[in-house]
Amino acid sequence: MRVARFRTDDAITFGVFDEAEHGGGEELVELVADPMVAGYETTGRRFRLDEVKLLAPVIPRSKIVCVGKNYQDHVAEMAGVTGIGDSAPEEPLLFLKPNTSVIGPDDAIVRPAISDRVEHEGELAIVIGAIAKDVPESEALKYAYGFTCANDVTARDLQISDGQWARAKGIDTFCPLGPVIETDLDLADVRVETRVNGEVRQSASTRDLIHSIPKIIAHASQAFTLLPGDVILTGTPAGVGRLEPGDTVEVEVQGIGVLRNTVR
Amino acid sequence: MRVARFRTDDAITFGVFDEAEHGGGEELVELVADPMVAGYETTGRRFRLDEVKLLAPVIPRSKIVCVGKNYQDHVAEMAGVTGIGDSAPEEPLLFLKPNTSVIGPDDAIVRPAISDRVEHEGELAIVIGAIAKDVPESEALKYAYGFTCANDVTARDLQISDGQWARAKGIDTFCPLGPVIETDLDLADVRVETRVNGEVRQSASTRDLIHSIPKIIAHASQAFTLLPGDVILTGTPAGVGRLEPGDTVEVEVQGIGVLRNTVR
Repeated sequence: MRVARFRTDDAITFGVFDEAEHGGGEELVELVADPMVAGYETTGRRFRLDEVKLLAPVIPRSKIVCVGKNYQDHVAEMAGVTGIGDSAPEEPLLFLKPNTSVIGPDDAIVRPAISDRVEHEGELAIVIGAIAKDVPESEALKYAYGFTCANDVTARDLQISDGQWARAKGIDTFCPLGPVIETDLDLADVRVETRVNGEVRQSASTRDLIHSIPKIIAHASQAFTLLPGDVILTGTPAGVGRLEPGDTVEVEVQGIGVLRNTVR
Repeated sequence: MRVARFRTDDAITFGVFDEAEHGGGEELVELVADPMVAGYETTGRRFRLDEVKLLAPVIPRSKIVCVGKNYQDHVAEMAGVTGIGDSAPEEPLLFLKPNTSVIGPDDAIVRPAISDRVEHEGELAIVIGAIAKDVPESEALKYAYGFTCANDVTARDLQISDGQWARAKGIDTFCPLGPVIETDLDLADVRVETRVNGEVRQSASTRDLIHSIPKIIAHASQAFTLLPGDVILTGTPAGVGRLEPGDTVEVEVQGIGVLRNTVR
């Protein structure tokens, strides 16, 4: 099932995609509330996609946990960057982004005055659906509500000068999420591709993840209680690069959709 | 004014301290709602302190921003620790703790299985009261609702092995806050003292802060939109050290009170 959060003329609401009743592709079937909490009861209203504005499908009330250096080719490309080592970490390397950095599909990534070097990092993201603490890897996927696309936008200059990554990666608008949450995704070999102005810059498969998705959930839950609505970004492959004003950046995760944002 | 959040027999509620009507120290005057949002209208109910359990005075819905290396003597003591440089940063060095790490007065700091070296870091914390983005230093204090005590509990072994500090400092129970929010505090020369089992381990004055409180707020607001209820930890002075099961750790900020926690 693909779940969307969206704005209509009169409300912010949730829905699932369905074939349009009168043909011509898909439309949104409105739900009475957030299905992560309230299930899939429908209101009876249906919306064409051109009648609504899709929003970030989730705004975490607690945290966005991110994994650094989780694709070997990205570890290699980062090794030249001051302060970032050349070895893949034995355990998933975690950092946090604040919920104030979240934007939705088609929202603008705003380059801040404090950075001259803003870069894209396309990623697959996990949306947590149930309280998770010290969960074993074998059970970890039960705590995932679904999956979405994310862009771990990074002020590379501040990442290097600070050493700690929280500010460089936590700036307002630096966490595009969407366009939807896919609740059923076979994780074995999912392509994650990032394009800038239509040109492919990053492309990898979940086969290439150093630490698997169950491993990441289990590992994070040893430190943090994960809450429903928390989001985990699983790391970016090689090919990160600059974003300039006017650029359009797309993160496409196979089976989920395309998360498109412009840069301002 | 000193504001508390507390649990009574029948509710979780807010209050302010007042002289007890029948003598014998202070009692809590209950408020109709969170005064940060709703002001100081009272319900008419009053509680003795032994009738209630004080809770963390605020649970951020967005973020806890922390400042690293903000006292010169702590910068010096950390210089020997692998991966942490010996220079004070020119700008406040920011990192994040998640709201799932927050506990209140008298709650237990739980040493997790993943760490063998859990340490205290007593600090003065700012509670943000209004939306702040790109605020100038000269206006920054207007965005502070008040101040409380905090303990930036740290798994020192994980801080060193991860390099990034989010996991080591974000573990469940690693952000004690309280006991109250003091809305009126002259920041010029406030003593911040941390004791373990009654013995003073850290003691410094806000005079010794490398980056001032207005500077910290202004700097953080250049990256992040600060929201009401966000908390900023302003850094710890020298004297950090291990906590063992059974220890009692107290962070006292002059003019606010004593934040006491045990270690389990």
